[in-house]
Amino acid sequence: MAVYTDVSDDELQRFLAGYNIGSLLAYKGIAEGVENSNFLLHTTEGFFILTLYEKRVAAGDLPFFLNLIEHLAARGLTCPQPVRGRGGEALGCLVNRPAAIFTFLDGMWIRRPNAAHCAAVGDALAKLHLAGADFTMTRRNGLSVEGWRALFDAAGGRADKVQKGLSATIGSELALLERDWPRDLPQGVIHADLFPDNVFFLGDQLSGLIDFYFACIDALAYDVAICLNAWCFEPDHSYNITKGRALLRGYMRARKLNAREIEALPTLCRGAALRFLLTRLVDWLEVPPGALVKPKDPLEYYRKLRFHQAGVSARDYGID
Amino acid sequence: MAVYTDVSDDELQRFLAGYNIGSLLAYKGIAEGVENSNFLLHTTEGFFILTLYEKRVAAGDLPFFLNLIEHLAARGLTCPQPVRGRGGEALGCLVNRPAAIFTFLDGMWIRRPNAAHCAAVGDALAKLHLAGADFTMTRRNGLSVEGWRALFDAAGGRADKVQKGLSATIGSELALLERDWPRDLPQGVIHADLFPDNVFFLGDQLSGLIDFYFACIDALAYDVAICLNAWCFEPDHSYNITKGRALLRGYMRARKLNAREIEALPTLCRGAALRFLLTRLVDWLEVPPGALVKPKDPLEYYRKLRFHQAGVSARDYGID
Repeated sequence: MAVYTDVSDDELQRFLAGYNIGSLLAYKGIAEGVENSNFLLHTTEGFFILTLYEKRVAAGDLPFFLNLIEHLAARGLTCPQPVRGRGGEALGCLVNRPAAIFTFLDGMWIRRPNAAHCAAVGDALAKLHLAGADFTMTRRNGLSVEGWRALFDAAGGRADKVQKGLSATIGSELALLERDWPRDLPQGVIHADLFPDNVFFLGDQLSGLIDFYFACIDALAYDVAICLNAWCFEPDHSYNITKGRALLRGYMRARKLNAREIEALPTLCRGAALRFLLTRLVDWLEVPPGALVKPKDPLEYYRKLRFHQAGVSARDYGID
Repeated sequence: MAVYTDVSDDELQRFLAGYNIGSLLAYKGIAEGVENSNFLLHTTEGFFILTLYEKRVAAGDLPFFLNLIEHLAARGLTCPQPVRGRGGEALGCLVNRPAAIFTFLDGMWIRRPNAAHCAAVGDALAKLHLAGADFTMTRRNGLSVEGWRALFDAAGGRADKVQKGLSATIGSELALLERDWPRDLPQGVIHADLFPDNVFFLGDQLSGLIDFYFACIDALAYDVAICLNAWCFEPDHSYNITKGRALLRGYMRARKLNAREIEALPTLCRGAALRFLLTRLVDWLEVPPGALVKPKDPLEYYRKLRFHQAGVSARDYGID
């Protein structure tokens, strides 16, 4: 949940004078994204989203994100588009923060996705990977295998406060993944955070993708593994192979996974589970006791990791 | 800041089936109001606000609030209007909470009001009081003088944690107001919370009032005192008589204050300051240490109280 920074009517009107989107009629802070402050704007030209980038997003990465979503849209993907200012710039400054205005994208995220939703996500993910193939900017994934040990060093010592034995489990998993991580898989632009709340649907149709602020260059199949974790487990932490098969088939119709990617899938799923277990653990341990905003449960990803550790093969995820 | 309750796409679509406002295209939690969860809805018919009433608003009071804003709108006041369902009801149930849909009201609240804004607020407040004259429902003000001792009992013992001597100051002020409170002033519908964030402007024009969830029947001049406190002090806690005069003149053009109301103004301002000092103190002391959501500073109202205690007369507020 967001809106960390308030914007005054004066400041906002001055900021909007740099854009060609009419005059301001209303604006409201909205609960969207967890890293930034977001506002819905109503102007005489319509509705827009204003994003203020808070400190968790590195300002130097913003041109990568903004150029990427324009690149993807030019290749047919639907995602909110930055509105360029009168001078042509996509990025401005408001309340001492980098700020950008985006088109308003209709659609809702699905709280309880079914297999058809999973198929649509697989399809959209593959199309994102294909559309990113000729994107020339680069951003390394700070939250892939090379980044995990630093997270473990920061939080591992207190992991047993969350669950007894958790620190040892993470430590041995991390050592194993550092040794076995597949480093020769097809690379390209990945979304890296395509959770249900970042995928909008209108009825049964996927209407667009949002929140590209973890996007980077990494193994494409790692993005598939992130989605299997995010979309294909049930609330009771069981893996739903029907949803997994739907997601993988949806993906493979647009982009075939090669044999090495398929073989690596269990390891990639373990890594994807460990990545979210670690970042959630850090967030969990950083929150002061009694805080009103509750971080996401790291143990959800511990349970997913347990599933992947149990000697599964690519077939167990639903690869035909 | 709000959004306490999440609503799933499924639940919301089922709820909207009871209304004649088209089909849902998007919805987002918005940071508006502090007592309820609010969502912006986009449907094929336009934009609306959905409010879920959380436990701080008594369900039994909702018909008073909803009928009142319809009553006021019928008499020319602009405020968001409840959209009635297919069966004619303004109030429904969503996620086990009372819920209502409202029209979307353009406008922005003014972070740094000037005298012209204060004049417009005075005018709108008087028109609200006149428009409420023939409203037949009733709701007593639980946060007027009869309600303050209970708040003091709840929080007074810990008030010195916020500032040394605060408990004694509040105790003696409360005793004085219980003795001297004017009980024979003209009564009627008051907003009781007309702070800057509840008044929208478009350019220099007041475009509407929101958030009637403290509205009740009480002394009309007490509402004026609440507004003087909320609109006419500077950030350095000094009283700005130019703003006060503008607000009072704006009010008096539409509704004259009588001699007893004018005479009572300093006492009413003291009471209005004590009321917000007490409720903010309770909120302040209830928040767990380290919480991410910071309540409003009670001492702002202590400083306003100090101004009113210093032997001021109605002329010092800007009464001509």
